[in-house]
Amino acid sequence: MAVDLSHSPDVAELVDRTRAFVRDVVVPLEEQHGGVARTEEVRTELQRAAKDAGVFAPHVSPEYGGHGLDMCGRAAVFEEAGYSLFGPLALNIAAPDEGNMHMLEAIATEEQKQRYLRPLANGQVRSCFAMTEPAPGAGSDPAALTTHAVRDGDGWRINGRKWFITGADGAAFAICMARTSGSAGRTEGATMFLVDADNPGMRLVRHIDTLDESLYGGHMEVVFEDCLVPDEAVLGEVDEGFRYAQVRLGPARMTHCMRWLGIARRAQDIAVARASEREVFGSRLGELGMVQQMIADNEIDIAASRGLITQACWELDRGRSAAQSTSVAKTFCAEAVWRCVDRALQICGSLGVSGDILLSRFLREVRPFRIYDGPSETHRWSIARRVLRRHDKESTR
Amino acid sequence: MAVDLSHSPDVAELVDRTRAFVRDVVVPLEEQHGGVARTEEVRTELQRAAKDAGVFAPHVSPEYGGHGLDMCGRAAVFEEAGYSLFGPLALNIAAPDEGNMHMLEAIATEEQKQRYLRPLANGQVRSCFAMTEPAPGAGSDPAALTTHAVRDGDGWRINGRKWFITGADGAAFAICMARTSGSAGRTEGATMFLVDADNPGMRLVRHIDTLDESLYGGHMEVVFEDCLVPDEAVLGEVDEGFRYAQVRLGPARMTHCMRWLGIARRAQDIAVARASEREVFGSRLGELGMVQQMIADNEIDIAASRGLITQACWELDRGRSAAQSTSVAKTFCAEAVWRCVDRALQICGSLGVSGDILLSRFLREVRPFRIYDGPSETHRWSIARRVLRRHDKESTR
Amino acid sequence: MAVDLSHSPDVAELVDRTRAFVRDVVVPLEEQHGGVARTEEVRTELQRAAKDAGVFAPHVSPEYGGHGLDMCGRAAVFEEAGYSLFGPLALNIAAPDEGNMHMLEAIATEEQKQRYLRPLANGQVRSCFAMTEPAPGAGSDPAALTTHAVRDGDGWRINGRKWFITGADGAAFAICMARTSGSAGRTEGATMFLVDADNPGMRLVRHIDTLDESLYGGHMEVVFEDCLVPDEAVLGEVDEGFRYAQVRLGPARMTHCMRWLGIARRAQDIAVARASEREVFGSRLGELGMVQQMIADNEIDIAASRGLITQACWELDRGRSAAQSTSVAKTFCAEAVWRCVDRALQICGSLGVSGDILLSRFLREVRPFRIYDGPSETHRWSIARRVLRRHDKESTR
Amino acid sequence: MAVDLSHSPDVAELVDRTRAFVRDVVVPLEEQHGGVARTEEVRTELQRAAKDAGVFAPHVSPEYGGHGLDMCGRAAVFEEAGYSLFGPLALNIAAPDEGNMHMLEAIATEEQKQRYLRPLANGQVRSCFAMTEPAPGAGSDPAALTTHAVRDGDGWRINGRKWFITGADGAAFAICMARTSGSAGRTEGATMFLVDADNPGMRLVRHIDTLDESLYGGHMEVVFEDCLVPDEAVLGEVDEGFRYAQVRLGPARMTHCMRWLGIARRAQDIAVARASEREVFGSRLGELGMVQQMIADNEIDIAASRGLITQACWELDRGRSAAQSTSVAKTFCAEAVWRCVDRALQICGSLGVSGDILLSRFLREVRPFRIYDGPSETHRWSIARRVLRRHDKESTR
Repeated sequence: MAVDLSHSPDVAELVDRTRAFVRDVVVPLEEQHGGVARTEEVRTELQRAAKDAGVFAPHVSPEYGGHGLDMCGRAAVFEEAGYSLFGPLALNIAAPDEGNMHMLEAIATEEQKQRYLRPLANGQVRSCFAMTEPAPGAGSDPAALTTHAVRDGDGWRINGRKWFITGADGAAFAICMARTSGSAGRTEGATMFLVDADNPGMRLVRHIDTLDESLYGGHMEVVFEDCLVPDEAVLGEVDEGFRYAQVRLGPARMTHCMRWLGIARRAQDIAVARASEREVFGSRLGELGMVQQMIADNEIDIAASRGLITQACWELDRGRSAAQSTSVAKTFCAEAVWRCVDRALQICGSLGVSGDILLSRFLREVRPFRIYDGPSETHRWSIARRVLRRHDKESTR
Repeated sequence: MAVDLSHSPDVAELVDRTRAFVRDVVVPLEEQHGGVARTEEVRTELQRAAKDAGVFAPHVSPEYGGHGLDMCGRAAVFEEAGYSLFGPLALNIAAPDEGNMHMLEAIATEEQKQRYLRPLANGQVRSCFAMTEPAPGAGSDPAALTTHAVRDGDGWRINGRKWFITGADGAAFAICMARTSGSAGRTEGATMFLVDADNPGMRLVRHIDTLDESLYGGHMEVVFEDCLVPDEAVLGEVDEGFRYAQVRLGPARMTHCMRWLGIARRAQDIAVARASEREVFGSRLGELGMVQQMIADNEIDIAASRGLITQACWELDRGRSAAQSTSVAKTFCAEAVWRCVDRALQICGSLGVSGDILLSRFLREVRPFRIYDGPSETHRWSIARRVLRRHDKESTR
Repeated sequence: MAVDLSHSPDVAELVDRTRAFVRDVVVPLEEQHGGVARTEEVRTELQRAAKDAGVFAPHVSPEYGGHGLDMCGRAAVFEEAGYSLFGPLALNIAAPDEGNMHMLEAIATEEQKQRYLRPLANGQVRSCFAMTEPAPGAGSDPAALTTHAVRDGDGWRINGRKWFITGADGAAFAICMARTSGSAGRTEGATMFLVDADNPGMRLVRHIDTLDESLYGGHMEVVFEDCLVPDEAVLGEVDEGFRYAQVRLGPARMTHCMRWLGIARRAQDIAVARASEREVFGSRLGELGMVQQMIADNEIDIAASRGLITQACWELDRGRSAAQSTSVAKTFCAEAVWRCVDRALQICGSLGVSGDILLSRFLREVRPFRIYDGPSETHRWSIARRVLRRHDKESTR
Repeated sequence: MAVDLSHSPDVAELVDRTRAFVRDVVVPLEEQHGGVARTEEVRTELQRAAKDAGVFAPHVSPEYGGHGLDMCGRAAVFEEAGYSLFGPLALNIAAPDEGNMHMLEAIATEEQKQRYLRPLANGQVRSCFAMTEPAPGAGSDPAALTTHAVRDGDGWRINGRKWFITGADGAAFAICMARTSGSAGRTEGATMFLVDADNPGMRLVRHIDTLDESLYGGHMEVVFEDCLVPDEAVLGEVDEGFRYAQVRLGPARMTHCMRWLGIARRAQDIAVARASEREVFGSRLGELGMVQQMIADNEIDIAASRGLITQACWELDRGRSAAQSTSVAKTFCAEAVWRCVDRALQICGSLGVSGDILLSRFLREVRPFRIYDGPSETHRWSIARRVLRRHDKESTR
């Protein structure tokens, strides 16, 4: 036993295969569509290709057709997939489906798995996760949850308004988080419900027009109005929703980082190629010190992000809560990826702000990551409070 | 004589009137159109309203229907206009028309003024400035100019390719910069030509899809192919184009800063309003230290930007070249405005990335300003070289 | 009336004279002593030279032997003086004497002026300002003031502990701020007292060993123990101390900025000279892009600092409170000056960290300025709160 | 085989023992001496205690009395030792001895090991590494090496001037790098020589007064004047000095990072303790958002530094050159550690700039690390060039 950063041969080979697949198959399609997949045809084509290449659903257990990667393995493969905005869709590891599969594997009943996880894992259907609400509801503060569910006969009646529900348009089902006890402000008393898309009580109100546009199915506002679901729709235990949210959010936070790290690398590669070719003021762009500084800072940000992801994933793989290390990694990565794309765009100049290359698209896609999954400020607050609590505990020992 | 930062009563009153006009008339229209004016109806309506409010064309001399403001006066009025993306269009001080009027007033013949400046100044027509070229032509390095004009009978024949020609779509004429002597890499031998839009030798090739979208008429790629113009089309003297470019670019650099400073203030106001109302984790958002820090940093960035603009404008008003102070101000403002909008968006969270408010639109609009009008890196390079030359000169005295 | 950034001929001439004096007389002495004046001989020599050069006490009214500069005039002259760590001492405008003179001129009785201001203004004696206290007393939060004074016969009895009392060692008198009513936490009920150094109730406890060392007389811990003072020792009105503190602190905050801005310029000059001479990797250091970036950023920081100082001084000269603009200027300048010195040191490499040049001395001197006179965090908090209050007021109108 | 960040039980236990030793024995001595060990008594006392605690010389092979840690093991133990400025001296892993032992183990002859390594490893003597020279010699550009050695009878005659020779005062021998072929500017033709301190040709000229003061033996200027050494003084092969420098510098770069990371953690602990106790404006300091932000950013910087060190050490342990990953880690760590200490000092306010706690001492010690061992700019330049070369190679395949 000693520190080791290498992967098993199986994982290493999957990483290589994913890299080649993304470069040869996915990137050309992405460039052709300007980075935004808008039709089922595109999604189907991408996923068929991923299955052919043997890289589909790497995170799902073999039982459901996947490669059963642990978090450290995902870190390497997802980064490769994330090298293209279309990669995660192709491998069926895009948000929110990937996180939903993770949660379903962890807490669904066997019956629920057959009904919801199986078709989701093989790409037959998509899903969404209905947690966040417009102010003053659950946003950066999940405890503010206002959507509630009450007993109604043998089932439950859900009422509430959700927004920024990614992938809702076209999803076969939603996992909806609603308060079943306690009041807004308490971090207990929530329950997860599986709601089929054809439930008349669930209404897709509107597409929210957002800076980012690449997440398939968009971000929607969804209303639950006297939405009746049977008891079998309860995912896990009643009133344990906040705990499950953590089960989902910790790893999901990391998979976001892995995917966006891929985009940071891609942006860097585009900028480096430009810096290598473009001449200005009589020099190759890449020979100018301020450009070199941006290239080096990207390299540093990418390496540091990877190191923090590894640390958090290793803790998660050992069954630890990893609350601190995932917050640390998420905060750093969200800002580092943003810096990388911003620098890459700056290096490319007016070409970078044009649609002739994808950098301005990437810039739009990564900006919200500093807000989604907990704004940097919320994470910093949590990080500091944990440090202070640790100090207080140690100093009173 | 002593330091004085106040404006004359006339200017102060124009500033107030502009502020009220923008708040009451322009912002509502801007919000209705999502910040992007796409039709002549909108432009006409805005400019009619500005004329009614007595705030139209503040920079043009009274002879051509304006208020004849000097640069310091413009600084105050343009900032107010820039508070809305639609303000500059309403006042007829948007790029590139505003800079073209400035240059025409400075160097056009009387006849050219009547033909080009007059209708431009009253908003009857629009114009464009055809200088920048795709790589390896004139971009951040104007000396790389490749478009050229040669004598042809009594006139000139222009050939070359331009891109990022703002406002080209619908412009009545272009001011085209072409090389009439010397070779690419030399900063002499360029000439400015007035080219009518109906000249068959000038072709609008395509709209460049850019991150920013609010500059009326878009950014186009324009080709000059055996474009014949008469001798009267020469603006100023033959071979003096690089000097005129400086005449235009120094002040234009500042007017960009003034307008974008308005957007920084607007973003701050939106964020402060949000911070004042929104509750999270049991506190008003504005009571949280990290939010206060962002609000304070915006306040500092806005104040510092204004101070640098004032310095540069004061030098320009006294007839100095102001090359260093305009570079300093442009570099700082472009980055400060960007930071302000970014922080404002962060404060507003997911609402900020949604189209429900205009912050993500602002973010898209201001990003390119760190590249347009000379990337920050080019300006920093110039600034440092001037400092070093000054040192070398002083130390050898 | 219009924006004007030029000085009257008198002030302009004093600026030039100060610049020459500092360069020719002060800098050589400063370098000889490593930037720290430790004896009365040095102070006397410096002040005699300043008197000879006609640049002594520029801030004091002519009645007391000075040039009677307003704040805008001081901004220009103090920056020149601040170009050397010894300059302020030479001109008798060093902290805390300069701020004490300002306050004495504003609120002392005629008798107090003759007794305290006159000898202070001509450099015969020095003084200190005893406000700050160790935790949990008055530090970044003046309201926490715990030192108190109670009536005792015809006079007052002061008790309390002060620290970071600059210049205490050798001062002829202290201006001591003590609570005369109200309790800790209230920003009212303080009074200013003039305490002679030979008062047996005032004891200099120890020199605090600090990162900075250049303020003459050091930073001391001072104890007031049953310190009896007569009624005539009250400076201004009883219980008005917090108001007077603001009278002193607003301008004092700016004069700190002016002086340190001089050091930023000096650091830049040293770095530029080095960048101009030193060759590395086959290039002149100043030709390397990353070095140029640091030089340019220094230039930008210096210009922005100056603009913010001008804005605040202009408001102060017009009799405004300038609370917001002095906070903005102080916060930015303290951080900008720090960045400038840090970059200059970086440019000079190992020479920069050596005592062979003064940069590491400057670094030590300017670091505390981000804490003294209100930490950046306290100022940001104040700035944001003012912005939010302004918003709340406007939105309820 | 899979990713694993845990240490073997032996190493883990040594880490714990080192942590306890530093906390219980080293920190009290460090605080007593203000962080600067100035006498052999202190050094001897520290090393005897480390031997007693079984934590001495962890990096040296068991044959020479150490624990034989690989680089990953060192990373964990050195960070614990670095928690105090006195820790590295105690464990005999301070610069430059630690790096010299590493190089001697790698390339010395058996006889040289007995004579130089053995007494060095057990703390009996100290050593120095004479590579860097004043401008225009070998500084951030080692190729500029000007000190040269020529054949003289059976030995060599060395001439040249070195500066910033850490630990020279009191060292029993120096490893001197001198040019034996080629000319200044070439990265070949250097040779390493072992020079005994009593060699009359080696003169310690002066102590360089530096911002940092904690490296035992200081930084000296050393002159080699007709310094005669026998052939057995050659370390490794003639003309292979640049290659050996890399053997030494890569790992030495990392061990610097490990030690300084310990100081970053220490600074954070001091600041957190302060934030936990100190009340201001009616709140505990640690409840204020801007303070929480600084605490969180420290936590992030520390975690990211550790991740980058791990990556580089793992590569070194596998025998890779690790040139890129050590440059990336060094650049990030030097700046991150600096930021951590700076933030910690800011949190502590005026107490932080006082000598009452050690933060201002730490600030002085870590600042030069952004320059020593290659300035950040040089590393960024190398990093970018490697990225560009990699691109050029891949794109021409």
